Amino acid sequence: MVYFIEQKFSVPYYYKIFFTKYVFNIKNEILVNIIKKDLILERKKLLVIIDNGVIKNDIINEIINYCNYYSKFIDLKENPIILKGGESIKNNFDINNYIYELINKNNICRHSFVIAVGGGSLLDSVGFSVATAHRGVRLIRIPTTVLSQNDSGVGVKNSINYFSKKNFIGTFSPPYSVINDSSFLLSLNDREWFGGISEAIKVGLIKDANFFYFIKNNIKNFINKDIEIMEKLIYRCAELHVNHISSADPFEFGSSRPLDFGHWAAHKLETLTKGRLSHGEAVAIGISLDVVYSYFSGFINIDIVNDIINVFLELKFLIYVPELDFEINDVGDSLIFGIKEFQEHLGGNLTIMMLKNIGEGFNVSYIDISLLLKSVKFLKNFKY
Amino acid sequence: MVYFIEQKFSVPYYYKIFFTKYVFNIKNEILVNIIKKDLILERKKLLVIIDNGVIKNDIINEIINYCNYYSKFIDLKENPIILKGGESIKNNFDINNYIYELINKNNICRHSFVIAVGGGSLLDSVGFSVATAHRGVRLIRIPTTVLSQNDSGVGVKNSINYFSKKNFIGTFSPPYSVINDSSFLLSLNDREWFGGISEAIKVGLIKDANFFYFIKNNIKNFINKDIEIMEKLIYRCAELHVNHISSADPFEFGSSRPLDFGHWAAHKLETLTKGRLSHGEAVAIGISLDVVYSYFSGFINIDIVNDIINVFLELKFLIYVPELDFEINDVGDSLIFGIKEFQEHLGGNLTIMMLKNIGEGFNVSYIDISLLLKSVKFLKNFKY
Repeated sequence: MVYFIEQKFSVPYYYKIFFTKYVFNIKNEILVNIIKKDLILERKKLLVIIDNGVIKNDIINEIINYCNYYSKFIDLKENPIILKGGESIKNNFDINNYIYELINKNNICRHSFVIAVGGGSLLDSVGFSVATAHRGVRLIRIPTTVLSQNDSGVGVKNSINYFSKKNFIGTFSPPYSVINDSSFLLSLNDREWFGGISEAIKVGLIKDANFFYFIKNNIKNFINKDIEIMEKLIYRCAELHVNHISSADPFEFGSSRPLDFGHWAAHKLETLTKGRLSHGEAVAIGISLDVVYSYFSGFINIDIVNDIINVFLELKFLIYVPELDFEINDVGDSLIFGIKEFQEHLGGNLTIMMLKNIGEGFNVSYIDISLLLKSVKFLKNFKY
Repeated sequence: MVYFIEQKFSVPYYYKIFFTKYVFNIKNEILVNIIKKDLILERKKLLVIIDNGVIKNDIINEIINYCNYYSKFIDLKENPIILKGGESIKNNFDINNYIYELINKNNICRHSFVIAVGGGSLLDSVGFSVATAHRGVRLIRIPTTVLSQNDSGVGVKNSINYFSKKNFIGTFSPPYSVINDSSFLLSLNDREWFGGISEAIKVGLIKDANFFYFIKNNIKNFINKDIEIMEKLIYRCAELHVNHISSADPFEFGSSRPLDFGHWAAHKLETLTKGRLSHGEAVAIGISLDVVYSYFSGFINIDIVNDIINVFLELKFLIYVPELDFEINDVGDSLIFGIKEFQEHLGGNLTIMMLKNIGEGFNVSYIDISLLLKSVKFLKNFKY
């Protein structure tokens, strides 16, 4: 006879992802409406943490003015805090301690707000501290890059790197709200502008063929920095991302993770290239590799391969870097160890997504190393 | 026109709290059944982290033998790791880093298991690292004290202290399973044995009058260390605790937190007494204070006050320590600042539970400091 008590409950989550321009203009009430929505306290304490990459024009004063204008609802505790964005912020726990200190010093509580303005790395690092202080302070994300607006910034995760392993520490902590402000995209450099498109291509390839062809048919517009086309890409990509999360296993208790198509190699390449490749650039190579592998495995034909790789090349992505090269019995740190690390991070059996058509992914549980070698050689020698 | 996407989902949680004896005896299959239940991987990686307070008899070898006997299902990666338990473990982030290292070194993945054996503090600290490595490795809690078996160990939280503030950092992360093994209670010292009863008294007072009277009527049995009576107390207290969590707001998005009756003062006293009081001992004083405050506020009569305080005194609890004393305009760190800190940790408006009858709590949103002073004096001068 085994005695036990059963505990069973569900935790409901709800948040909105807003699409707007000039979020800190006092005529734009989206932000103040989010903050005043919950009537528990009339005036909410607020900290704003901002990526140094978006400190342009007069944004700091604009934020201060916005909070002053709406001071009936917003209690800005300090001038916006500027942090250096980019992947390096995730390698430095001192930053997390600094954020804990800011939260402590300013008596930020679980019903206060922290706004993080910046690229995906800053949102990830700030998000981890905010999610774990008082077991979770409210976070409003204002992603400022294509990549963070269409992908990580609208999702439910945060993370920092540890032991040189990407995202080793983190939590599943949905944001309180997300505001995608397309005016930030106007000042992105080429790498940031194009970098985020690879995640959109990924979602199209595994979930929505029409979306892939929308990207393919608008290559010229992306090259010409057409902001309206980019807004459309971000909206649809965010929508597919959000639907995927809510449709299955938001906190990833299982093994499958289709949105990580191309990511086992991408994560490893980011480490092997010591940050030379951005996440989006690494994802483009990771997808190309798994597309070619899908071809050599007989899942798709060569036309599809050419179609996809040409889109990447026209959008100025690399599809090969020397760090892809490995030998079957490699003993150093090389690409093939990425398969094992990916499995460990997800847990459970190896589950890697491959392609069976444009718009349709499926899972395999085994990677043939000799086909992988062949795929790397294919990319190395690919003639455009 | 405001454009937005809505994200909405619920995350389901399910776990069992088992009640048993001699969990590491190879004839006891509860643990191995938990580990082999999920068939994703045949053999699960396992780390065992154990409180030095429970290293008695031959428990380390027993654990190793258990894992060897069931090695078809269990892959014990290291001999059990012994850590010093008690509140101090929560003040030392080096411990958390050490646990991250163990998880990394042993390639523990999200589908592996960490078993934490010990008192509430060890479960809290280990729980934080386990919940944040890979965004959550599976944790089996084996609480070994009355307090952890009837209260924190069956709940959904973990935490560490930061900036000398109790539980400043942590997450809501339900365990994979909990095993309450009453054989650990046999070797508890007096303080540990009685210490956990205060949380049971608390739950009785705010939720179940019959349970309070069960405790009152069994005082002699508790003093005589009757293990079967203690098992009954733990079972019912855990049940009430578990039902409370699932019935309302498991991750505490709102302001109300009835299970924290008596805890605003208890948390502050733990800090002010620099660990001289255990959590259970501080809770007994915190409850006594709020019971007397409830009386001076006219919510309950004096007989109820005497009834409750006498139960605490007969169970060898203190109801007064000098750290309770404060002055209205205190400038040093004193009890009254505990009210504000409690509010900040919960967030939102002040919400403190008071008593309107035995078995019935209710929330107030204001504390009258002069009545609080009067309550402290009442406890100081209470004649048994």
